[in-house]
Amino acid sequence: MNNDQLIATLATNARRAARTLATSTYEERQQALLAIATLIEKKEDEILRANSNDVQRERAAGMNESLLDRLTLNPARIAGMANGARKVAQLSDPLHQTLRHRVLDNGLELTQVSVPFGVVGMIYEARPNVTLDAAVILLMSGNAALLRGSSSASQTNQVLVEIMKEALTTTPISPEVLQLVPSDDRDTVRALLHARGLVDLVIPRGSASLIRTVVDESLVPAIETGAGVCHVYVDKHADMEKALPILINSKTQRPSVCNAAETLLIHKEVATSFLPPALTALHSAGVTLHCDELSGKVASSLSIPYIPATESDWSTEYGTLEMNVGVVDSLESATEHILKFGTHHTEAIVSESQESISRFIALSDCAAVMINASTRFTDGEEMGFGAEIGISNQKLHARGPMGLEAMTTTTWIVKGDGQIRK
Amino acid sequence: MNNDQLIATLATNARRAARTLATSTYEERQQALLAIATLIEKKEDEILRANSNDVQRERAAGMNESLLDRLTLNPARIAGMANGARKVAQLSDPLHQTLRHRVLDNGLELTQVSVPFGVVGMIYEARPNVTLDAAVILLMSGNAALLRGSSSASQTNQVLVEIMKEALTTTPISPEVLQLVPSDDRDTVRALLHARGLVDLVIPRGSASLIRTVVDESLVPAIETGAGVCHVYVDKHADMEKALPILINSKTQRPSVCNAAETLLIHKEVATSFLPPALTALHSAGVTLHCDELSGKVASSLSIPYIPATESDWSTEYGTLEMNVGVVDSLESATEHILKFGTHHTEAIVSESQESISRFIALSDCAAVMINASTRFTDGEEMGFGAEIGISNQKLHARGPMGLEAMTTTTWIVKGDGQIRK
Repeated sequence: MNNDQLIATLATNARRAARTLATSTYEERQQALLAIATLIEKKEDEILRANSNDVQRERAAGMNESLLDRLTLNPARIAGMANGARKVAQLSDPLHQTLRHRVLDNGLELTQVSVPFGVVGMIYEARPNVTLDAAVILLMSGNAALLRGSSSASQTNQVLVEIMKEALTTTPISPEVLQLVPSDDRDTVRALLHARGLVDLVIPRGSASLIRTVVDESLVPAIETGAGVCHVYVDKHADMEKALPILINSKTQRPSVCNAAETLLIHKEVATSFLPPALTALHSAGVTLHCDELSGKVASSLSIPYIPATESDWSTEYGTLEMNVGVVDSLESATEHILKFGTHHTEAIVSESQESISRFIALSDCAAVMINASTRFTDGEEMGFGAEIGISNQKLHARGPMGLEAMTTTTWIVKGDGQIRK
Repeated sequence: MNNDQLIATLATNARRAARTLATSTYEERQQALLAIATLIEKKEDEILRANSNDVQRERAAGMNESLLDRLTLNPARIAGMANGARKVAQLSDPLHQTLRHRVLDNGLELTQVSVPFGVVGMIYEARPNVTLDAAVILLMSGNAALLRGSSSASQTNQVLVEIMKEALTTTPISPEVLQLVPSDDRDTVRALLHARGLVDLVIPRGSASLIRTVVDESLVPAIETGAGVCHVYVDKHADMEKALPILINSKTQRPSVCNAAETLLIHKEVATSFLPPALTALHSAGVTLHCDELSGKVASSLSIPYIPATESDWSTEYGTLEMNVGVVDSLESATEHILKFGTHHTEAIVSESQESISRFIALSDCAAVMINASTRFTDGEEMGFGAEIGISNQKLHARGPMGLEAMTTTTWIVKGDGQIRK
């Protein structure tokens, strides 16, 4: 069987099984998630054994410590996964919700309701907890899942999927709604992306290059996630007392994630007052600075080392303690810079002027605008979604953190009594 | 300048101009549409002259009468276009609407609002009225438009776009928000589909092969529209008094459009009672029948001619007075047939059983389910949207008729007072 046939088989099995999800009740899906949580905790030893095999093999193969850390499970992380499933089970039902309702003059009753996509493919990298996090969100939203994790986590993922399937045998939901896609062959990703008509949606989660591959290659509708070149713009009407903590928090609180800031833009009228404390604080926090000409002069005058910012720096998602610094002539220059180099993820403005804020919102074209707040708040948990399957920075379907609702589509139910068109 | 550079230039101009839309008020957009309506009527002669050139050239080149009819404008059709623009101007504002609102414990105020996509590419075929219909929907929803019509309508489209641009000069909205993409070269379609990052969304409207090209080729997010292999399923619990008019209306009222039915599926328990009147009525209405074995026997017994239905017939969108007829063992067999051969557009069930209706809704996986009503009701006008830019039969973003709201995306506005993440 080649990979296209393999994916076709897995997707067809998943779709047939998905009928048991499409007709399931909220309570049945809740029970399924609770059964998964219980069994994941009960089988902790089995999970840790498989994970230890993965970690040892990858360590021997030379994987770096940061990736090894992401790959490694321990009892606390397993408990976290189980509790994550319990939390999702408590969220309100995303299915069969009435989104629009209308009765027409001819008596037809229109109801637009939320329904599952059907079969969703997840393509993700090292962290095995995504296997569980994604599966429970997809189950709760009524979708069958094709899970294509990293080969580095293959044994862990295999055990996690087996445990979830075993848990589903105690429910009316068919265990076949979960399908692990083999990760020992890179070509299974291509086959999944080409399974148009068999898979309804693919979601990549991981590096920019993975997401780029999906966007370029996929014939299946895809949701782009994650890449975040986020900016903090300090307006001429900024309250400097707010600006400094927002800047430092946006850059340094967790630099590896997509909602961390990569670039500081400052209005020229406040550059001379704000740059000295800002550059000093960033430098003290261990941030390597990439400066434009004007901010570089300020850095020099403070004896703070910096690298002259290159064209490619402005569009780099560092994911580390590095930051670009630029001085702009106006709010419009700031938003032009953001549109040119940004990724439509999260943009922050620090300003006390309602006019500046309104123009920034209208012109920055992103999933989330932070007004006098850290970029780090673009996050499903922080924003009260309860769980998130990723952060979309595309405009189609879902924009920003995606929770259960984003994993649904709609159907118009048109109820008649024999109406025909005149 | 090659076509990639051409599209880049048009899209960049459109995006710059789109700022005047992003910051426009509802009243300004309404006035723009009314100005367009007035000028379209005033310049009727100019439009008719250009259209007459297109029609003469295409007639000489051998275009068939049905396509010539779609290409031809007359005073009534021009008035229809102008009144269409006036109607869209009366619809409620799709922009800056609050979709979700939440205040977090930390004081952050979250508001999800509707915003324009930005730059939308329309790719469409013969009918020049789409130039105006699409432009006004896109303007009203705050989007700049790249309009790529058919080369057969090139002079008409050119004049229509010039008139709309002239009308915009009387408003605060830049005329550059409308850009006509040259249609003299097929390659401009490819260039438009590859303009990732420059164009936010493309919408194809036209033949199945156009839509297939877009789906296969596009690197820009696209919304599939139109292809409709719709079914009428007559359940064993059907009221036959309702079934017959629904069947005939679904097939014959306007067979060329996507929401016309192509296939009748009948539960075996009612086949012997329903098929004789159904086949007789279809035959009398001039419908050519493609029958499975059982329905073919009934046709034979009534001396009604038929063609044995082939595998490819079941998935053909005839668009003419032809219909497939099949007898199924159960509701589940009907929905399996629909999932195998349908296009997730519109599926009708005729049944008095709530259980049958619920199962059909859960298992037919389509944009619109008609319960005891004609498939022909899946239509923006009929469903009260006021206008439609197309009917989506994909699951991502919009499903079913797309009005103004479907042409918007969202932004989370997060209002703080200096909040940072702990």
